[in-house]
Amino acid sequence: MKRRDFIKTASTVGVVGAAASAFATPAISQNRIEWKMQTTWRENSPLLWTGPKLVADYVSKMSGGRLTIKLYAAGEIAPPLQVMDVVADGGLEMGHGYPPYWAGKLPAMQFFTPLPFGITTQEQNAWFLYGGGQEIADKVYGELGVKFLPSGNTSVQSAGWFNKEINSIEDYQGMKIRSGGLGSKVLAKVGATPVQMPLGEVPQALQTNSIDGADFVGPFNDMAFGLHKVAKYCYWPGWMEPCGVLDCFINKAAWDGLSDDLKAIVEAANAMANNVVLSEFVAKNAQAYQTLQTEHGVKMQFLNDETLAVLGKIAGEVIVEASEADALSKEVYDSLMSFRKLVMPYTNTSELAFLNARNLDFPYGG
Amino acid sequence: MKRRDFIKTASTVGVVGAAASAFATPAISQNRIEWKMQTTWRENSPLLWTGPKLVADYVSKMSGGRLTIKLYAAGEIAPPLQVMDVVADGGLEMGHGYPPYWAGKLPAMQFFTPLPFGITTQEQNAWFLYGGGQEIADKVYGELGVKFLPSGNTSVQSAGWFNKEINSIEDYQGMKIRSGGLGSKVLAKVGATPVQMPLGEVPQALQTNSIDGADFVGPFNDMAFGLHKVAKYCYWPGWMEPCGVLDCFINKAAWDGLSDDLKAIVEAANAMANNVVLSEFVAKNAQAYQTLQTEHGVKMQFLNDETLAVLGKIAGEVIVEASEADALSKEVYDSLMSFRKLVMPYTNTSELAFLNARNLDFPYGG
Repeated sequence: MKRRDFIKTASTVGVVGAAASAFATPAISQNRIEWKMQTTWRENSPLLWTGPKLVADYVSKMSGGRLTIKLYAAGEIAPPLQVMDVVADGGLEMGHGYPPYWAGKLPAMQFFTPLPFGITTQEQNAWFLYGGGQEIADKVYGELGVKFLPSGNTSVQSAGWFNKEINSIEDYQGMKIRSGGLGSKVLAKVGATPVQMPLGEVPQALQTNSIDGADFVGPFNDMAFGLHKVAKYCYWPGWMEPCGVLDCFINKAAWDGLSDDLKAIVEAANAMANNVVLSEFVAKNAQAYQTLQTEHGVKMQFLNDETLAVLGKIAGEVIVEASEADALSKEVYDSLMSFRKLVMPYTNTSELAFLNARNLDFPYGG
Repeated sequence: MKRRDFIKTASTVGVVGAAASAFATPAISQNRIEWKMQTTWRENSPLLWTGPKLVADYVSKMSGGRLTIKLYAAGEIAPPLQVMDVVADGGLEMGHGYPPYWAGKLPAMQFFTPLPFGITTQEQNAWFLYGGGQEIADKVYGELGVKFLPSGNTSVQSAGWFNKEINSIEDYQGMKIRSGGLGSKVLAKVGATPVQMPLGEVPQALQTNSIDGADFVGPFNDMAFGLHKVAKYCYWPGWMEPCGVLDCFINKAAWDGLSDDLKAIVEAANAMANNVVLSEFVAKNAQAYQTLQTEHGVKMQFLNDETLAVLGKIAGEVIVEASEADALSKEVYDSLMSFRKLVMPYTNTSELAFLNARNLDFPYGG
């Protein structure tokens, strides 16, 4: 019955057959399924288009055309911030976006948005796979009527672009800063005014001083939007967003109706996207980080330890408050915090200690 | 023709048909392919068995039984260190292991073994996917007659277990240390004697003081082998092995003979393993790191900065020497070092600066 419900959106169309005939193994001619996926991003949006494109391509390819996914850009079927609703209602089988866009729907969803002073990408992946994160994400996304799969990660972002210096926690007072999520609640507590604003409006807002600073993404995207032309300082470290999982979400009935082999294919395509997108962020951010300094004269700025320690303490208060919203929020918070507590001493000894050692002053290679 | 060569090992056997009938979509009854994969690990070897098992399971599942992979443990078909030869010769279609095992076959292969003071797991994945690493790995593994796919990562390992303290570079003099790869060449240059020894013999060698120390893996595996019972000190950071990719290698003719959909399936299954295995290492090492201290009273030790800076300088000399072996070694070295040079300043500003900020002294959450 479930399968029938879900097949209402499937159809056997000529173009699928034509594409499939290119494969060495002919696809089954019955039970061809065609899904629609819409992202929250514009077509070919740098770094962000990679994941949904890869998922669509690999699912179609791996299934030999038995399941094809037609990819739509933001607005083609639904406005970007309505993709979750449309997927939940079955108007799209699949969506691709970023958890902060759904944080308003359910308090517990906030814990899938970047957690200030929380966990790194490597730790978040370990939490999803071996710390109960996938199960609890399925519960939270399940409340919205969809199945969740991690499908890319921005890795640690920057602390934003500013036109005023930040030398102490007091400097935040009175600043208008484009930001969202739990990080913006921390900014509000130190006297700043968080401003919600689409990415595209940020450059002009900085240029006209209608905002003093903006949390954005990372060097590659920031440079593409020309933030270095309208803001004096790029600040680090990215305490607000130490990682940022991108999400693939699937209409629950559509997911449940898939055969085991197609479920495995959708799962593997997203696992692949998760790794590929992270790698693209790392490689292209590294290149842009260099270019910003060598070609555009940007001098990177660092928040000092005193300022960071105050932000850290307030971040702790903000997440405790967020955990008190309801029982599900508390459940996600407990899982995430218990994993953070477990993994942090190990990461300090392994990754952090290695990175500090590598950064000592010695000649290395040619 | 190629496809014919490769199908010599395939067969349509009853058990495959039976397994496939469990899938909702009936598999194609012709061109069923059955591959054999052998690992270099014992069956159910902690953390190391996860990758090959997942690859075998997901390929069979995703292909609806069109390509099944039968998994063999070390020694079942070939001795573990001969798996590469047997795969190259076509006696197995697929193997799963660790690049250091093949380092003796080709000098350039050394650069796929952990590089002392080299790059982290996140950086290595970015190098493979966006820094030319996959192409150059295909060239190096191609020389051995196989196709390469990254298929798991140990993440940063420890600096080893010792029965003598290391407070200065001079303390290495005269020590016998179980180790391999480029790291062991660094140890030799500071006056230690590297000793090659299978994992299983290490505990007794430490107990009887026939060695003074041993480079092993990380907390979870080390604890499973009982190293904490036979060695006094566990040292960090893991300067010798900041990451360790596990490799899946495929007979070249077998790979070339696969249809595009099956190639995509094999590729995606390995990409998934790459992420899952890394996550398991992180999560289980974090747990074991805690257990070693709370239940077994292990006090973790850290090499001091003076000692690390000398090791770093000598590591730089060792890798330059390794790069001079032949043209291919130089090519891999140049690619890897150019990526390291690009990515390191960015990692310092993003991951490292965040980890240092998170580690400041402030209360966080409940």
